[in-house]
Amino acid sequence: MAVDFSELAVEGVRSLRPYQPGKPIDELARELGLNESDIVKLASNENPMGPSPAALEAIRRETAELHRYPDGAGFVLKKTLSDKLNVRSEQITLGNGSSDILDFIVRVFVNDGDNVVVSQHAFAIYGLVARTVGADCIAVPAKDFGHDLEAMLGAINERTRIVFVTNPNNPTGTWNHRDELIAFLNKVPENVIVLLDEAYFEYVHEADYPNGIELLDQYPNLVVTRTFSKAYGLASLRVGYGVSSPELADLMNRVRPPFNVDSFALAAANAAMLDEEYVRESIALNDRGMNYLTSAFDNLGLSYIPSVGNFISFRVPDGVDAMEVYSGLLKQGVIVRPVANYEMPEYLRVSIGTESENEIFIRALQKVLA
Amino acid sequence: MAVDFSELAVEGVRSLRPYQPGKPIDELARELGLNESDIVKLASNENPMGPSPAALEAIRRETAELHRYPDGAGFVLKKTLSDKLNVRSEQITLGNGSSDILDFIVRVFVNDGDNVVVSQHAFAIYGLVARTVGADCIAVPAKDFGHDLEAMLGAINERTRIVFVTNPNNPTGTWNHRDELIAFLNKVPENVIVLLDEAYFEYVHEADYPNGIELLDQYPNLVVTRTFSKAYGLASLRVGYGVSSPELADLMNRVRPPFNVDSFALAAANAAMLDEEYVRESIALNDRGMNYLTSAFDNLGLSYIPSVGNFISFRVPDGVDAMEVYSGLLKQGVIVRPVANYEMPEYLRVSIGTESENEIFIRALQKVLA
Repeated sequence: MAVDFSELAVEGVRSLRPYQPGKPIDELARELGLNESDIVKLASNENPMGPSPAALEAIRRETAELHRYPDGAGFVLKKTLSDKLNVRSEQITLGNGSSDILDFIVRVFVNDGDNVVVSQHAFAIYGLVARTVGADCIAVPAKDFGHDLEAMLGAINERTRIVFVTNPNNPTGTWNHRDELIAFLNKVPENVIVLLDEAYFEYVHEADYPNGIELLDQYPNLVVTRTFSKAYGLASLRVGYGVSSPELADLMNRVRPPFNVDSFALAAANAAMLDEEYVRESIALNDRGMNYLTSAFDNLGLSYIPSVGNFISFRVPDGVDAMEVYSGLLKQGVIVRPVANYEMPEYLRVSIGTESENEIFIRALQKVLA
Repeated sequence: MAVDFSELAVEGVRSLRPYQPGKPIDELARELGLNESDIVKLASNENPMGPSPAALEAIRRETAELHRYPDGAGFVLKKTLSDKLNVRSEQITLGNGSSDILDFIVRVFVNDGDNVVVSQHAFAIYGLVARTVGADCIAVPAKDFGHDLEAMLGAINERTRIVFVTNPNNPTGTWNHRDELIAFLNKVPENVIVLLDEAYFEYVHEADYPNGIELLDQYPNLVVTRTFSKAYGLASLRVGYGVSSPELADLMNRVRPPFNVDSFALAAANAAMLDEEYVRESIALNDRGMNYLTSAFDNLGLSYIPSVGNFISFRVPDGVDAMEVYSGLLKQGVIVRPVANYEMPEYLRVSIGTESENEIFIRALQKVLA
């Protein structure tokens, strides 16, 4: 009799369903017989500016070493990050995307039967990595779509090892103020890790928005993650990082695969970090796009969740099925992101694009809703 | 009182020490004040031919999409692999290096308190990934430095979930014949996974060397891994793959991070897979280099372990400390690999280089031993 291997899998894995990414452009092109250049993808919070010239130049230089293993220690990139962020190299953990860091911290601290605490509507990967090791994922009801830090505090119990705080949160674009974050950090038990995910840090202008890295000295249980996939425009290469105490970085380094970040990612991220102009322009483009889209939503009478990120979630009109709007946009070559799996079935998330991408999206949306 | 976070880490992680990669060229250059171009690195079994032109061209094409997330499904590369290997796309799992696949299979099947079986002198990563999830790693004494498959069979007990077989093995270069592998597979309990690591598959010419992928139909518990880091010359980009039943691939896909292989790696691997000439030349260069080095060792009166890979481990003369030979080579700008952590303290492993690299190494070795 044949063995049923899924019965042999560890418990957390048996019920796991893989993360659903935004629909890739080439996939839609294949399905609809469209040219890739006719498709507008606003589904993955990518940087619509296109490649950073400095990163491209770094990639060109790197090609001579295509056959060599990467520097597993990431010496050069860590040095640049340490200068820019005013931390020590030993505080930095490099990841194949910042999602790698989420995985490391879970593998270091979470046992089968433990739990992690997240907010309702928070990034799906937290729950996935926790369930992989057999942990429960306690989702705390959101307040106005944002993290209710008081309630999250109340959800911590003796089996809680990590609390995930996303600031700003994806896919809601909500954020927590400095005062509430500090009040929260002061009350979290000191043996519980706080993973503060700042993937969209660069886009936020609000005066009360806290910089997690500046809080590290006071909270040894704090890990801050950031990414090169958004404002730095390097999503294709997968590079992100965690900043923490050297002690936590050392523990994460033990479970980090030795060459998790490749040579091209290391070189491009280093160049991108030094290219401040690209990031500045990206943010300005995002600000203009956000203004345009919120005005357009207002004109269309659509409500949306005010966002400080490079994306915004809008509500489809009552009686309209969000998945039909999604499909209607797809047929016109516009890819946005359904967020039903984030308990937001009446919403769609759209990434801020270039001016012309935003316009194409709004025209397509008008057509679908008409 | 400050929290000791290492005490809070999961048990397997507490005693873990990170993998020690070969010394990077730029690190030695910094330490010795040498030019990188004056350093010969024969420490990581990299392809000395340099970059594959086809892969470079694919990378150039990919730069336009630097800001986009990779295709998480790896559609194009899986299609090419499926054609070339005569398997279905659903049988393939893509990894950020084939070491990713080792990690996935462990995460799917191994619980805290289970064990995995490996051979003495086998690749260090197997034990690391197993210990990370709290499993024991049973190392079975080698026979003439090679896997003793009979003895490994005898080591399997009721808590064994995976047996790792490396064919050929790194760092010994030993291999198992088709007959012994099949006899072994016939006797392994059908609920125990056999991970057959064929990272050096392309280099082997022996008629009795088995192709694991051709055995998949008969052994549903078999997973074969291969890599683009060696004969395909893409170590910098981190891409490898597993081939198995669709059922096992589906389970591994659940724990696979959604964008584990980046766009450049996907594109370059696809091009490299189609560039058969590059691989053919790489293998021919390796054959010539292996002949040269074994003759040179013979002339120097040094014994070595006959190897079918792109590396060879040689024994330092009695009374000589291998680490002193290693350091003596370093001072001359030649990096080889100490293998004391593989229970081979009297050996050093050298990767086969270009003709001139091999000559520089042998001259430096003569100098050190003189």
